[in-house]
Amino acid sequence: MIWYLYSCKKGVLPMPHFSQEEKEAVYKAIYTRRDIRTFRPDPVAPDTILKLLDAAHHAPSVGFMQPWNFILVQSADVKKRLAWAADKERRALAIHYEGERETRFMSLKIEGIEQAPLTVCVTCDPTRGGSHVLGRNSIPETDMMSTACAIQNMWLAACAEGLAMGWVSFYKKNDVRDILGIPPHIDPIALLSVGYTDHYPDIPILESSNWEKRRQLEPLIYAEQWGRQA
Amino acid sequence: MIWYLYSCKKGVLPMPHFSQEEKEAVYKAIYTRRDIRTFRPDPVAPDTILKLLDAAHHAPSVGFMQPWNFILVQSADVKKRLAWAADKERRALAIHYEGERETRFMSLKIEGIEQAPLTVCVTCDPTRGGSHVLGRNSIPETDMMSTACAIQNMWLAACAEGLAMGWVSFYKKNDVRDILGIPPHIDPIALLSVGYTDHYPDIPILESSNWEKRRQLEPLIYAEQWGRQA
Repeated sequence: MIWYLYSCKKGVLPMPHFSQEEKEAVYKAIYTRRDIRTFRPDPVAPDTILKLLDAAHHAPSVGFMQPWNFILVQSADVKKRLAWAADKERRALAIHYEGERETRFMSLKIEGIEQAPLTVCVTCDPTRGGSHVLGRNSIPETDMMSTACAIQNMWLAACAEGLAMGWVSFYKKNDVRDILGIPPHIDPIALLSVGYTDHYPDIPILESSNWEKRRQLEPLIYAEQWGRQA
Repeated sequence: MIWYLYSCKKGVLPMPHFSQEEKEAVYKAIYTRRDIRTFRPDPVAPDTILKLLDAAHHAPSVGFMQPWNFILVQSADVKKRLAWAADKERRALAIHYEGERETRFMSLKIEGIEQAPLTVCVTCDPTRGGSHVLGRNSIPETDMMSTACAIQNMWLAACAEGLAMGWVSFYKKNDVRDILGIPPHIDPIALLSVGYTDHYPDIPILESSNWEKRRQLEPLIYAEQWGRQA
């Protein structure tokens, strides 16, 4: 198992070499990863779940604090309560959109929580590693950014394993804390729906639904100074 | 060019299939990625830089807001000023560590800014996409987390391209804003050193220097409820 091999070697290695095929595989995961909201009910095998979580656990973290936990939700009852929290927030948010934008907002399929066989609540513990975590002392939100890197690793691993994932970011954190028994100082960063799908679009759902367009990359790149085109 | 191909197809595709070799290549990038602080001076080719930035640009973002910009710093003078800002913060932070911990802190090699041929300042614009970004309305810090996902994509692409990267997270944001002319509402999320290296450790530098250990994964996984071991 290659991930085990890489985790356990000790010493200093030469910079790892990637063949052309290996490079292409990495880009394939990066470019084909999508945020998915429609799932088949088939369960995800426990070892596959563990592979995704181990990929997440090998993300970079500020001061090596590894601030994450993973709460695996597979019970229909708990998923239903999480879906309720997300739907409540969705209805509250809809009030801020008016007219045509509200109609479009309500037509977006945004939750697959009840459909997906697995929801992973990824949390961030800002107290992990003690009071003076290297780097976090300077920029405190680096703990959340580390957790986001873990989510991205998990997403790319899911893609490679033929699994679809959706990041639900509509909820009141205290609703999720209440439902999952999460202590007040722990941040429930994301609810991730994971499962197999028959609906895998090749462009982002928010792009095909004309909600937002993909920007051109070039205007986002500057040289030496903000605003100076590269 | 495979990344271009994946960016441009239109329609609904079947879930992409990854061969065993392709899966292993994705895990290889995830497991061999390291935070590097020692670089050779050789420059990075402009198209390779563009590949890394395009990988970053294909990260997920809340409401598809794509809040990132990339300021490429290659001038020795600007790099020197960024290194000064990081070093100043490092000396300030050292005061919070005392005794043996302070000695260890000061012995860690933490900055490769002047050595690396390229520093990329990655920023996050919380105003991009207007006042009511889907999802960000509910959890505002999802913009920063999106930017962190972009950084992780970039890091994995760098690894596949044989490039080393280091994420510098010691600086006062206003120093970096002053040096790079970044407006006050834009968040300079990270300074990334990018280049080739002859020093590529197979375990994290903070682990080999006994600063922190890698945690066991299993105790970080819960089932259905916080604290209930899976």
